[in-house]
Amino acid sequence: MDTILQHYQNTRNYTQTICNPLKIEDYTPQSAAFASPPKWHIAHTTWFFEEMILKSFYPNYIVFDSEYSFLFNSYYNSIGKRIERHNRGLITRPSIDVIFKYRAYVDKHMTQLLETAADPEVVKLTVLGINHEQQHQELLLTDLKYTFSLNPINPKYTDHNLIEATNTESGWLSIQEGVYSIGHNTDSFSFDNELGLHKVYLQPYSISKALVTNKEYIEFIEAKGYQTANYWLDEGWYWINHNAIDKPLYWVKIDATWHHYTLSGLKPVNPDAILTHISYYEAAAFAFWKGMRLPTEFEWEIASENLNWGQRWEWTNSAYLPYPNFEIAKGAVGEYNGKFMINQMVLRGASSATSKNHSRPTYRNFFPPQTKWQFSGIRLAK
Amino acid sequence: MDTILQHYQNTRNYTQTICNPLKIEDYTPQSAAFASPPKWHIAHTTWFFEEMILKSFYPNYIVFDSEYSFLFNSYYNSIGKRIERHNRGLITRPSIDVIFKYRAYVDKHMTQLLETAADPEVVKLTVLGINHEQQHQELLLTDLKYTFSLNPINPKYTDHNLIEATNTESGWLSIQEGVYSIGHNTDSFSFDNELGLHKVYLQPYSISKALVTNKEYIEFIEAKGYQTANYWLDEGWYWINHNAIDKPLYWVKIDATWHHYTLSGLKPVNPDAILTHISYYEAAAFAFWKGMRLPTEFEWEIASENLNWGQRWEWTNSAYLPYPNFEIAKGAVGEYNGKFMINQMVLRGASSATSKNHSRPTYRNFFPPQTKWQFSGIRLAK
Amino acid sequence: MDTILQHYQNTRNYTQTICNPLKIEDYTPQSAAFASPPKWHIAHTTWFFEEMILKSFYPNYIVFDSEYSFLFNSYYNSIGKRIERHNRGLITRPSIDVIFKYRAYVDKHMTQLLETAADPEVVKLTVLGINHEQQHQELLLTDLKYTFSLNPINPKYTDHNLIEATNTESGWLSIQEGVYSIGHNTDSFSFDNELGLHKVYLQPYSISKALVTNKEYIEFIEAKGYQTANYWLDEGWYWINHNAIDKPLYWVKIDATWHHYTLSGLKPVNPDAILTHISYYEAAAFAFWKGMRLPTEFEWEIASENLNWGQRWEWTNSAYLPYPNFEIAKGAVGEYNGKFMINQMVLRGASSATSKNHSRPTYRNFFPPQTKWQFSGIRLAK
Amino acid sequence: MDTILQHYQNTRNYTQTICNPLKIEDYTPQSAAFASPPKWHIAHTTWFFEEMILKSFYPNYIVFDSEYSFLFNSYYNSIGKRIERHNRGLITRPSIDVIFKYRAYVDKHMTQLLETAADPEVVKLTVLGINHEQQHQELLLTDLKYTFSLNPINPKYTDHNLIEATNTESGWLSIQEGVYSIGHNTDSFSFDNELGLHKVYLQPYSISKALVTNKEYIEFIEAKGYQTANYWLDEGWYWINHNAIDKPLYWVKIDATWHHYTLSGLKPVNPDAILTHISYYEAAAFAFWKGMRLPTEFEWEIASENLNWGQRWEWTNSAYLPYPNFEIAKGAVGEYNGKFMINQMVLRGASSATSKNHSRPTYRNFFPPQTKWQFSGIRLAK
Repeated sequence: MDTILQHYQNTRNYTQTICNPLKIEDYTPQSAAFASPPKWHIAHTTWFFEEMILKSFYPNYIVFDSEYSFLFNSYYNSIGKRIERHNRGLITRPSIDVIFKYRAYVDKHMTQLLETAADPEVVKLTVLGINHEQQHQELLLTDLKYTFSLNPINPKYTDHNLIEATNTESGWLSIQEGVYSIGHNTDSFSFDNELGLHKVYLQPYSISKALVTNKEYIEFIEAKGYQTANYWLDEGWYWINHNAIDKPLYWVKIDATWHHYTLSGLKPVNPDAILTHISYYEAAAFAFWKGMRLPTEFEWEIASENLNWGQRWEWTNSAYLPYPNFEIAKGAVGEYNGKFMINQMVLRGASSATSKNHSRPTYRNFFPPQTKWQFSGIRLAK
Repeated sequence: MDTILQHYQNTRNYTQTICNPLKIEDYTPQSAAFASPPKWHIAHTTWFFEEMILKSFYPNYIVFDSEYSFLFNSYYNSIGKRIERHNRGLITRPSIDVIFKYRAYVDKHMTQLLETAADPEVVKLTVLGINHEQQHQELLLTDLKYTFSLNPINPKYTDHNLIEATNTESGWLSIQEGVYSIGHNTDSFSFDNELGLHKVYLQPYSISKALVTNKEYIEFIEAKGYQTANYWLDEGWYWINHNAIDKPLYWVKIDATWHHYTLSGLKPVNPDAILTHISYYEAAAFAFWKGMRLPTEFEWEIASENLNWGQRWEWTNSAYLPYPNFEIAKGAVGEYNGKFMINQMVLRGASSATSKNHSRPTYRNFFPPQTKWQFSGIRLAK
Repeated sequence: MDTILQHYQNTRNYTQTICNPLKIEDYTPQSAAFASPPKWHIAHTTWFFEEMILKSFYPNYIVFDSEYSFLFNSYYNSIGKRIERHNRGLITRPSIDVIFKYRAYVDKHMTQLLETAADPEVVKLTVLGINHEQQHQELLLTDLKYTFSLNPINPKYTDHNLIEATNTESGWLSIQEGVYSIGHNTDSFSFDNELGLHKVYLQPYSISKALVTNKEYIEFIEAKGYQTANYWLDEGWYWINHNAIDKPLYWVKIDATWHHYTLSGLKPVNPDAILTHISYYEAAAFAFWKGMRLPTEFEWEIASENLNWGQRWEWTNSAYLPYPNFEIAKGAVGEYNGKFMINQMVLRGASSATSKNHSRPTYRNFFPPQTKWQFSGIRLAK
Repeated sequence: MDTILQHYQNTRNYTQTICNPLKIEDYTPQSAAFASPPKWHIAHTTWFFEEMILKSFYPNYIVFDSEYSFLFNSYYNSIGKRIERHNRGLITRPSIDVIFKYRAYVDKHMTQLLETAADPEVVKLTVLGINHEQQHQELLLTDLKYTFSLNPINPKYTDHNLIEATNTESGWLSIQEGVYSIGHNTDSFSFDNELGLHKVYLQPYSISKALVTNKEYIEFIEAKGYQTANYWLDEGWYWINHNAIDKPLYWVKIDATWHHYTLSGLKPVNPDAILTHISYYEAAAFAFWKGMRLPTEFEWEIASENLNWGQRWEWTNSAYLPYPNFEIAKGAVGEYNGKFMINQMVLRGASSATSKNHSRPTYRNFFPPQTKWQFSGIRLAK
């Protein structure tokens, strides 16, 4: 088993690996308010270790640059003013070579601290920082894909486009009614929103062993799914009409054939691959059209040990709300999850862009229902 | 016990009673996209009986005016084109005297039908129409209050301003953990979203017997509640800052004293009265500041038989989502509830503006979290 | 020749005449930020006489209602706070019967004052108030038409729809180059923006004796005028595409025939009638397509004595800017014109909705280039 | 005198000189819809030579990259689809090293063409391309300043910040009334909007020999200029209030002292330097407060030979409209100026950021009245 230091270094190195195919220009732009520039991701994850650990636990630590606390803070209101989120793409200076020096500087000090420190609080916060960086590794990829997709020349990132997975199972899994245990127990790492273990009563249900494929979704499109009001939530119907949405994100029809932008450029849609880049609204409309529904997050969690999952974040029909006895941690770390518990839906599982060792059955991902730029997919229940 | 005809007539008459203090000018304006003009409420509730019942069940029924199907439809996409919601306030013609003729015409035919018909479908739809009209009776009052509040001369509607109720109990009610039954059984009327009866596991909890008062909320204001980020959900913090909100709806400070616009004009705020006209965001922030939380809708329902309620719609910490086995009815009636099940929070109870015989413990009201124009209030749990 | 009192009374009575076909409901709604409710027009014109004359010149004058100064002020920033322009349609109280009492009250006092007063300042301000009311008479009609047009049942105001005029002349009028006198001399009434008389050098030009007809404009539509970028100003091209504009205001095609909403209801477009309800952008694009241009306001003024005009406000290619030596009057009256001298284009002439005795060759009307709800038209020059 | 080839090469080299202090990251971001990234400026100016000259006049010319026609077109609708203006900042690929190869490729071919070609059309279009590039040189600086200003660390571009100029003259210049000649004669280069020479009648006027200084403008601020409605055009008053504007662009008060962001970083405002970065609205309000006015563009042009100018673009009180006999050229080149002739005000002169040999007394610059990011200033007239 890896030491905490090895775990730290592996994670930090993997962020670097993700950046290898990038050109200097690619680090700066921000293509939407919900996305961030690569530079910001790699600086912000570094800032987390400096702000939350080194400043408090490394004796006489000298910050790399006092302005970074402002520049690379994300949403931690308790740590002072931060740059307007939509202006992150204008931070050309500090330039990327300086940011990599910042990473090296923080890594050097973290390494020293982890080699020597036995303070369990340091270990705990380092694990949190590692998980935080892993989340940003996935966002780095999804944000980069979104930015590249808006460039008319369809830039290629790598050969590995993360969307070609197919189902390996089919049919339905049936679960009995009863009182079940939900949530994380505290022995291994989890985010605060997965705590604590509590009981939930479930009615009997069936859940699909396979995720919805591109082919199935094309059938929905061809059945006038986007033109039929009563398949849709009222907000979803408004949303698709107001934004002229009639296909998944990144899809475009060229000469009667569906293509989509992928991280390896523009490609034909593979009918057998698992559908991705759809919103909750689309997932719910598709399920309604099928005469089925999406599972709740509790149904998903209980079924998960007998499911194949990990290729797509799976929309559930559960709103992102606190578990019983949810407690918000004191200080800035407490801003991590709780304050987002409104107007978001829970996604369960993991995707092909999720970093290794980051997923678990109790993990609660969450996004507003119009979100499409994540590698999201649909699993049906009934 | 009332016959269905008496029930129908009482309800229809009560809508007229609400309108008695109005001047002709008051019937037309629409003050916000979420509100509707009085004329629209009284025509739309009439349209419901004509469209859903008379057209199908009254032999050879001749519609009062074929254009009303378009003018006074609300959100039933399956019944053809409808007027843009935000343009309802421009419908000066048909004038209000014609609309009252429309009501009389439909009432005459409904009376004939109810006097003779034994068709249980007619009875069932009539009960639905009555409950629908009762919902609009409450909206008529809340929408009128909102419109009047934007008139700088603070018009008076009646002496009865609906906001002076005080608590009659105090302290906490404790509930044991266990599996409880939630939802409506089908013997009496309910909306589809309350069905069907199902089991829910609840952890042990305590719920306040009293609602939050104006005095308690003023303490929150004076404790810089609106200026302290970490009391707030992130969306709520953005919302109060973006809209410069620092007090409940209708409140204004005059010479260091809080006043509020009421249906009987501008009045000083009574510290002992129960707080009202606050959003979910404010309810959640207040609860956080108190070190407590809002109850879930299930906790509320189980506790309800031992609570005093009915003065305020009480925000719960439950998102408006389908119960297990929720089924959407066929046709236009099926659009009533299910399609709004996203980005809304459940309110339980009833308010001083709710029509008599309309409330019950299983009733699920729902609004987006920024909603304030309803007579909403706060009950704490822990 | 009329006395000032007769002139006053005739004007006030004519406003009443315009209102005769209205129902009480029609007085309240405001259908756009640029339009005002009838109630507001008739109260505001009354307010002008009370605020500008009676308060200063009628001995011991008691205002009808002290709140009206706030409610019915328009854009005179120097006279204190005013109601948000877009909320004018919510002022159901005071009701219209009270407003007519307000008119009667002010009329009584104005009559007394004009019967006795010899103060030339009173006469001067009364003439200004009369002209002000005449402007609002035209706006009353254009705003009412706009509101009615948004009602799907196409209400009818009167049989007289103001748009059937045809050209009585054809051909071109040629004007020699030279130095000409422009502007109003001060013997009769004018607005401050027409002063003072000054010299302008004009190049030789020709100006059409006829205005563009519906038939000619339909040719432009059929020649793909709305689909051809290079006919349009860049802002105009953006505007028509962003707002999906491809025909004049109020036009709709029914079964391959152009119809338009008129004050006497929905009617087929008469090809021979003079085109109206077009924006400056459309006028400029049409002229470009014809290989011609719009006249400047100076060219128009010099040619006007040999032109037939008065059916349409004619867009000119002049921006609304101060004449040399333009002076802004002291006090609130000074806010009448000068502060609007940016981003507006001058229209010259008068329309079929302009009140009698209100037009003159030096009159400078002005609106932003997207304005369509006035009875505007096109005269070409080359 | 320079040959056309020397002129071409000097201009192209100067663009490179402007870019020398930039880091690779600086080339990409776009900080506002009205601004463009440096990469775009240097590619677009190159595209102009390729598209307008090489494609037509260089025998068998092979384009550098066929996608650039789409990527680096600006507003020439006749040359096919173009990238959304607000997405220019997302074009990370092609990277900047490729763009410099593109410049070298086009320069090589242009040099060959200019060394050999005697076609006067080539010379004429090359001169147009040179002037076009000079315009973009100025925009490159103003856009860069705007982007840098939004970075909280106040990046420094060079020591030369372009804003320290002071007046060298004072007092007033008086001009007699009469008929004057305005516009460019065709012997040397001009844009189409300066043509042709025509007569204008001017009333007698006086024009200031000096431009308004920072000190004078601070007096306006301290005299509550931004809080006094009647100094302002109505649109301007709305604009400053809606956008919370109470000082020139880039100004910030630190410890009671005015500072401003400059191209050499954050600096104290020099009271004696000439004011810059103000909108037309602010220029007009300042002039009104002074009891004066802005000159018209004709007054400015006639006075210009006896004025010191060239430090600031000077707002005039003339709208940007066509001169008599203005003709739009055929094809894409014709889109250069004419289609912007609405809702813009003319600025005359030149600024410290204007490229050498680019200014002349007949030059008509133009921007919407809220524009501030240019080096604009105020000259008074009366």
